[in-house]
Amino acid sequence: MTKQVGIIMGSKSDLPIMSEAAKALEELGVTYELTVVSAHRTPQRMIDYAESARKRGLKVIIAGAGGAAHLPGMVASLTSLPVIGVPILSSNSIDGWDSILSILQMPAGIPVATVALNGGKNAGILAASMIGAFDPKVAENMDNFKKDLKQKVEDSARELELKGWKESLED
Amino acid sequence: MTKQVGIIMGSKSDLPIMSEAAKALEELGVTYELTVVSAHRTPQRMIDYAESARKRGLKVIIAGAGGAAHLPGMVASLTSLPVIGVPILSSNSIDGWDSILSILQMPAGIPVATVALNGGKNAGILAASMIGAFDPKVAENMDNFKKDLKQKVEDSARELELKGWKESLED
Amino acid sequence: MTKQVGIIMGSKSDLPIMSEAAKALEELGVTYELTVVSAHRTPQRMIDYAESARKRGLKVIIAGAGGAAHLPGMVASLTSLPVIGVPILSSNSIDGWDSILSILQMPAGIPVATVALNGGKNAGILAASMIGAFDPKVAENMDNFKKDLKQKVEDSARELELKGWKESLED
Amino acid sequence: MTKQVGIIMGSKSDLPIMSEAAKALEELGVTYELTVVSAHRTPQRMIDYAESARKRGLKVIIAGAGGAAHLPGMVASLTSLPVIGVPILSSNSIDGWDSILSILQMPAGIPVATVALNGGKNAGILAASMIGAFDPKVAENMDNFKKDLKQKVEDSARELELKGWKESLED
Amino acid sequence: MTKQVGIIMGSKSDLPIMSEAAKALEELGVTYELTVVSAHRTPQRMIDYAESARKRGLKVIIAGAGGAAHLPGMVASLTSLPVIGVPILSSNSIDGWDSILSILQMPAGIPVATVALNGGKNAGILAASMIGAFDPKVAENMDNFKKDLKQKVEDSARELELKGWKESLED
Amino acid sequence: MTKQVGIIMGSKSDLPIMSEAAKALEELGVTYELTVVSAHRTPQRMIDYAESARKRGLKVIIAGAGGAAHLPGMVASLTSLPVIGVPILSSNSIDGWDSILSILQMPAGIPVATVALNGGKNAGILAASMIGAFDPKVAENMDNFKKDLKQKVEDSARELELKGWKESLED
Amino acid sequence: MTKQVGIIMGSKSDLPIMSEAAKALEELGVTYELTVVSAHRTPQRMIDYAESARKRGLKVIIAGAGGAAHLPGMVASLTSLPVIGVPILSSNSIDGWDSILSILQMPAGIPVATVALNGGKNAGILAASMIGAFDPKVAENMDNFKKDLKQKVEDSARELELKGWKESLED
Amino acid sequence: MTKQVGIIMGSKSDLPIMSEAAKALEELGVTYELTVVSAHRTPQRMIDYAESARKRGLKVIIAGAGGAAHLPGMVASLTSLPVIGVPILSSNSIDGWDSILSILQMPAGIPVATVALNGGKNAGILAASMIGAFDPKVAENMDNFKKDLKQKVEDSARELELKGWKESLED
Repeated sequence: MTKQVGIIMGSKSDLPIMSEAAKALEELGVTYELTVVSAHRTPQRMIDYAESARKRGLKVIIAGAGGAAHLPGMVASLTSLPVIGVPILSSNSIDGWDSILSILQMPAGIPVATVALNGGKNAGILAASMIGAFDPKVAENMDNFKKDLKQKVEDSARELELKGWKESLED
Repeated sequence: MTKQVGIIMGSKSDLPIMSEAAKALEELGVTYELTVVSAHRTPQRMIDYAESARKRGLKVIIAGAGGAAHLPGMVASLTSLPVIGVPILSSNSIDGWDSILSILQMPAGIPVATVALNGGKNAGILAASMIGAFDPKVAENMDNFKKDLKQKVEDSARELELKGWKESLED
Repeated sequence: MTKQVGIIMGSKSDLPIMSEAAKALEELGVTYELTVVSAHRTPQRMIDYAESARKRGLKVIIAGAGGAAHLPGMVASLTSLPVIGVPILSSNSIDGWDSILSILQMPAGIPVATVALNGGKNAGILAASMIGAFDPKVAENMDNFKKDLKQKVEDSARELELKGWKESLED
Repeated sequence: MTKQVGIIMGSKSDLPIMSEAAKALEELGVTYELTVVSAHRTPQRMIDYAESARKRGLKVIIAGAGGAAHLPGMVASLTSLPVIGVPILSSNSIDGWDSILSILQMPAGIPVATVALNGGKNAGILAASMIGAFDPKVAENMDNFKKDLKQKVEDSARELELKGWKESLED
Repeated sequence: MTKQVGIIMGSKSDLPIMSEAAKALEELGVTYELTVVSAHRTPQRMIDYAESARKRGLKVIIAGAGGAAHLPGMVASLTSLPVIGVPILSSNSIDGWDSILSILQMPAGIPVATVALNGGKNAGILAASMIGAFDPKVAENMDNFKKDLKQKVEDSARELELKGWKESLED
Repeated sequence: MTKQVGIIMGSKSDLPIMSEAAKALEELGVTYELTVVSAHRTPQRMIDYAESARKRGLKVIIAGAGGAAHLPGMVASLTSLPVIGVPILSSNSIDGWDSILSILQMPAGIPVATVALNGGKNAGILAASMIGAFDPKVAENMDNFKKDLKQKVEDSARELELKGWKESLED
Repeated sequence: MTKQVGIIMGSKSDLPIMSEAAKALEELGVTYELTVVSAHRTPQRMIDYAESARKRGLKVIIAGAGGAAHLPGMVASLTSLPVIGVPILSSNSIDGWDSILSILQMPAGIPVATVALNGGKNAGILAASMIGAFDPKVAENMDNFKKDLKQKVEDSARELELKGWKESLED
Repeated sequence: MTKQVGIIMGSKSDLPIMSEAAKALEELGVTYELTVVSAHRTPQRMIDYAESARKRGLKVIIAGAGGAAHLPGMVASLTSLPVIGVPILSSNSIDGWDSILSILQMPAGIPVATVALNGGKNAGILAASMIGAFDPKVAENMDNFKKDLKQKVEDSARELELKGWKESLED
């Protein structure tokens, strides 16, 4: 069956962050596939993945990587689908600056839609919003998701006001 | 007539950067509208713009701003359409770090698709790629655009090789 | 009863920092209210809060948030009361730079009075100093607070000199 | 006659930035005085200025300085009035980071209300908002000032929409 | 005829920096070729270049690029020859941090020998030192180059001492 | 017996990082020596080491140091062999920026081949690639090493696809 | 009895770092005094300390502080003795950048001799070197101290070479 | 005749900054010598200079350099005289961060007294303060210098107050 979103990551160690994208897509009713593709260690696999993506029916690719993170940008150079980049704070990263700048600062002509450091969940939501722009059912799910966010804040505000901050701090 | 992409900016002084998005969309055959909306000086106008966007038929919003750039993130909080953020290097900016981080580092739940500093052109291309995922004509334009990019590099490589770098430097 | 200071935060997880503001205001004899308001998840709640603040008798608003922290700046755009911004070092923050720059680097016309990273206590003291400029009782409390600070340093200096640093290190 | 706001700066070379504070206060109907006080070259003058400020009727002090900017913090340590700090991008500054961090990162107990780099104008507006919290006439001026900001954005938006961005770019 | 060093750059606009590498290699008696190869705009050309490099007799590749600079790292992933990366300060770069980190912070397994920002000349010298480790003639040229550097400093020191700094400043 | 690579470090506390270089060289069939040499505490020892390196048959020197890391650059100034610099994140380092910049930003004439922060392993691989450019046996080992990297990624991808991410996360 | 060096710190919590200065001075045969002086909480005490320092026979002052660290610079403005500044990585510091820049970037006319982040030990050694420039006994102690440093490196090098790195890693 | 201070710089291009140190020493009545010494291009000259410094009667060394600035730290490792380091903003520097961190972040045991970026003048004043701690005539010059600084600020303050800021801005 055709998937709408492809989630790839440079190393299996990125799974705790990138699985948040998968989880968000499931909640928002969007189909996806998920695997490991390394720009530096499996360049041919990356090329095959990116070049076949549109033909296989994908609408968006989410790519996460750490350090000198070339995966999102290289995939973007190999497909005309939108590519969402997730900078990952890997060990030996310099506070995440390396992956953020390697993904964000793409040259004119080859954009990557970059989300926050370790923003796997937001990558999933962003992909869903792209689908939702054309699919009313997903758009409705997005609206409900936003209502939930709002409800949770309002509930926690009410609880805090009732209990007072001193008691709330002890929770 | 319905536009597919809405381009907004915090101040008219952002036009030289943000008009690059408009230019890219025209080249790629995507319709758009363009205006000024300020998060801090016209908050109600921002709310009206964002909340009506989907109903008016927009598929993507591109929002550019400098300094403590709140426009892209606030618009993203008010619509479930995908929002592309363009960090702009304004005067008194601290090398652009302020607008990059204000746009990129959104909390979980409310993503902004951030492009490079002053990346107006890339914002337009990214918006077109989102449209192109569902519209074969735009996808074809994207493919042709990429072929052009490739052709230009190959031409400049051939010219450099023929002339040699010493003569080329004098051009 | 009318409160003088409104303390708001983007998420209940900011309470450990923001409760320091409440504690400081209590010590300095200033009344306050405290709740959760999210710029991105409850934009309408934020607007209602900010637009009613002056009418409800507030003199100052303290707003704390992390990451791409838009709450202080957006509240400042919606009221003409002074707004104090507290940058909070949230998880996935890039060492706090994101919240500092998102709060500090406001455009001309809409200032936010920014305090140090995680400076909840200083936000409370700063709010009290604004009240104290017009209220002699609070001013007196401020003066006593400063005397206490001084006394504590002098006591610790005396103790250190008496004991010597070698013994003091072992405390 | 009693002034409401004291504006001081570490060097006369800071006047182009700090005079923006004076200009804003004039527009908002707030009285002020303005002079040069250097923390490092005239420490006694700084002490005299800060310690006499409240007695002379000042309600707020605005202090601007560049590099290792100690003036705002030291003044804040010597008075219980609110102190607004303006980081100034001086020559040999490291992109302004030195003055921002020297002013912003004050220890617990001694806050400085920091505004954006070179934010002289915002310092004036912030001081006026503190006065306006207690003075209805200044509050009204603040409201009118905000309306003006809004009007200017709306006018520039309308003009841009009418002319189109191509013609507007040529202005 | 077989060349020893391949110099490539992401865009012809990098030539002023990268021609410094060519110049250094000429002075040190090392043969080279020079062309334009873009990771993002001509990915297949990059792959062909890197995969054929060893067979064509190259001993070292020098790759320069700006912004999110993926060329050096991707080439290093496609060959087992040593790859020297030159971070280039392009327009819209964030002070060069983006290209430095995109080139330097490669993951374990795929190193890039990174030189200073805009360090085209040093890239050429470094390549020559790698050749010189196995080629006594190039090693001798390296030694003479170092003697020249030393001589120039000693000459300028002597001249400065003789003239005095006051007169030297006026030169 | 003659060694091909010399590994030195500023302090024995750097051994956990620098031993990764030794391990990589062993795997790739390259001989090496390893010791402690401090630029600041044993300057004469550093000079003797660097000046005798070529005569003793070394082809490459790997030098690691933290903080204001002068060892790689000073060694590069004293030999015409290629020098690989490893920035080490020592205690009291400022996130590694100090050692990165002290090693990377060498002046024109004296390059250091800098690898990623704590990149001991990559330094070893880079040294082997320099040897491999002239030694077919080492080149073959490099190729096999790259094949292994690729195989491991493909295996982990297959495993992840089979198991699914939910089960994989629990490993 | 007259002390040669005065060690002061902004808070007793700085003692673990600043006691390293005392320890170094003891080892190098230099007399000292040590106490707590806060620029922000005890400004008058700071003034008295700095203005009396020369008269009391001090030759150097070492001042340590964290965050917006004004103590070293303010003391330097109040005495013509040399002042050594120790930036301290306090809690809520932004990786130490705030204290480094607040101490280092002093305006022309008022220098502070800044040492590395948390460099209490180096501050003591630097103070001793200033004394040693005029006192042969201290100079001799300095020379012996340097010989010890050298000896320790040579011993650890010899041990590492004998044991080999594999066994040494297990220590 | 014996000089008290030695001023050295890595390149003659540093003279505009380093001559400020010479100028300050002349004004403060301290004798000096000034020349070019490069750590990387003339290492032996650096060693000779540093090792003979004390014997030749120098009391302090001022060393300035840009980029990966190793001169101050290496000189400090070769003498037990106090060494003042001047970070210089050279071309291709990354905003000066490279020279600041290369000079400031010295390891325990080998301090460098670092002054502000391009702080040649402050280096001269700091050297004079070290001499002045032992030489009453120089101390008196220091005191007069400080009085002058104070007088100039007071004069400019008076002038500004008399003229008003509007007229002063036009000067």
